[in-house]
Amino acid sequence: MKPVEWAEDHVKILDQTLLPTEVKFLEIRTAQQMWDAIKMLCVRGAPAIGVAAGYGVAAAMQEYVDQSMETYHRELEKTIEYLATSRPTAVNLFWALERMKETGRSHRNDANAATQAALEEQAKSIEKYEENACVAIGEHALTLLKDGMTLLTHCNAGGLATVRYGTALAPMLLGKERGVHFKVYADETRPLLQGARLTAWELQQAGVDVTVITDNMAGMLMKQGKIDAVIVGCDRVAANGDAANKIGTYSVAVLAKHHQIPFYVAGPASTIDVNTPTGAHIPIEERGMEEVACGFGKRTAPEGVKVYNPAFDVTPHDLITAFITDKGIVEKPDEAGIAKLLSCRTE
Amino acid sequence: MKPVEWAEDHVKILDQTLLPTEVKFLEIRTAQQMWDAIKMLCVRGAPAIGVAAGYGVAAAMQEYVDQSMETYHRELEKTIEYLATSRPTAVNLFWALERMKETGRSHRNDANAATQAALEEQAKSIEKYEENACVAIGEHALTLLKDGMTLLTHCNAGGLATVRYGTALAPMLLGKERGVHFKVYADETRPLLQGARLTAWELQQAGVDVTVITDNMAGMLMKQGKIDAVIVGCDRVAANGDAANKIGTYSVAVLAKHHQIPFYVAGPASTIDVNTPTGAHIPIEERGMEEVACGFGKRTAPEGVKVYNPAFDVTPHDLITAFITDKGIVEKPDEAGIAKLLSCRTE
Repeated sequence: MKPVEWAEDHVKILDQTLLPTEVKFLEIRTAQQMWDAIKMLCVRGAPAIGVAAGYGVAAAMQEYVDQSMETYHRELEKTIEYLATSRPTAVNLFWALERMKETGRSHRNDANAATQAALEEQAKSIEKYEENACVAIGEHALTLLKDGMTLLTHCNAGGLATVRYGTALAPMLLGKERGVHFKVYADETRPLLQGARLTAWELQQAGVDVTVITDNMAGMLMKQGKIDAVIVGCDRVAANGDAANKIGTYSVAVLAKHHQIPFYVAGPASTIDVNTPTGAHIPIEERGMEEVACGFGKRTAPEGVKVYNPAFDVTPHDLITAFITDKGIVEKPDEAGIAKLLSCRTE
Repeated sequence: MKPVEWAEDHVKILDQTLLPTEVKFLEIRTAQQMWDAIKMLCVRGAPAIGVAAGYGVAAAMQEYVDQSMETYHRELEKTIEYLATSRPTAVNLFWALERMKETGRSHRNDANAATQAALEEQAKSIEKYEENACVAIGEHALTLLKDGMTLLTHCNAGGLATVRYGTALAPMLLGKERGVHFKVYADETRPLLQGARLTAWELQQAGVDVTVITDNMAGMLMKQGKIDAVIVGCDRVAANGDAANKIGTYSVAVLAKHHQIPFYVAGPASTIDVNTPTGAHIPIEERGMEEVACGFGKRTAPEGVKVYNPAFDVTPHDLITAFITDKGIVEKPDEAGIAKLLSCRTE
């Protein structure tokens, strides 16, 4: 089930806020609709957000094809700028929008229909890049992991967050196809429960052995010797290897270090932001208090109480055993390792 | 608002499963009703469970006062044995029931009415002991903490879990009365959200500055330098100082160590179990999967998925900066320190 799909005149988005109890698709035709879908987490996960944004631009621009070239390009810039304001942390959003912008600019002197076709092609190529990246990440990850291992993951970095195999879940899903089996513990991942709702659902559907735990149980499992490795996704990797990912990832990294368990971060090269020198420079989205105080239709904290709700945290590179990308593995990631990886970037 | 109150012919229990949205009291008259109230967490928190069990015995035995002494004492033993099966981890339950049993035995040759009166007195004295212990814990804790500090706590170890001031919350609540102010972060504490529902509610009512976070945010706050000390309660402390407490406590302890933040465990001496040599010997209750999978009145994990739901974990004594009890403070608790504390036990 694809989280984002191009349907010629609109974008089909699987509304992930309703999973696992309901499977419903949204039809996105305007920039506003895509902005809302990203902001409200109907589509989420750094690579999937990038893919959605690309297609969102293509869909939204259709109504301007019959207008003047000037209008078309002015609206294109506005659409891209607007979608960039939907969420601040995942860099794939900006990376994908930058590619759409460049495509538009390189067709500035072409007829709108040709530019529109080029934008649609660019959006498709972003999707294709992310899909290939997931397979490559899975291949690389499988060289680090052994059949029969028990893995812990946090949040959802599966097909729902990317294209098809996911990043952190790629070794599990690709492994399953190849007869390499893992037992997986999925942190439920408060406040929005992407682990319980999405990771458990995806792995269950793929026939992977998955057990849901609350976030605060990970330490106990590690102490009991039940976890062989941790693998998580990422929303932005700074030039020095610091990685922003869903809130709680940092705690898992510290726990893994304490228990001497390898801690792997998986993501496509599109998640690396060389313009962000360190994790301290990554903007961290803060979301509404109701996600914590009224999770799932029931008030669970007293009225008027203060709530702190950062959506991401940053894991410093020295807690990361290896950064697993489509371009290869960076062991003990640091500025030199990331630079070396990027110098091999072949897209 | 008292979590447990003796009302002459029954026990009044504040149903904590309904907080913070609803304040409702249960009238408990039978052993079965008290067993259910403990099992279903209408009353929870190690000291409060002990107090409830004491009063539960007294309430349940009323109907046997007019029967033969033999019947009365047989039913007393049965009632005590039955209530002991309600929850396995908190030792205060067994400690309180043992006191009730001893009281019964020491009145074996008295008329039932006299024995019944003695049981009621014993239950009251258990409550009084726990109330005094909370004040003493607060006094001791305030010698370790400074005005203006920011504290992190996990689960609920307040008045709702004990009598009046609580254990971990005693310095905050007693401090408030004395003009010593803390800023408090309350881990929401999945799966049953005792932090969000109960700690936040209690502290808010007392006018203490409290902010709710999800469990997985604690590490980020520590990294940001926002937490000066962690203070938590305990459900059973082994002879070597290992402490069982609500699931997630161990993770917080590891995070505190990583960030060199003091990690305090607060509890009455009644929580120490000298018959449990180490934390590895503490039985850990596992609870139903629906607490994790359907936690907010809405299904949040796919049907049929596996769930692991231990209610407690054990923090090894070497992660505990100090154990704060009514009898005094044990710094770097170990077998010798715990033994020394108990040798000073004056009750």
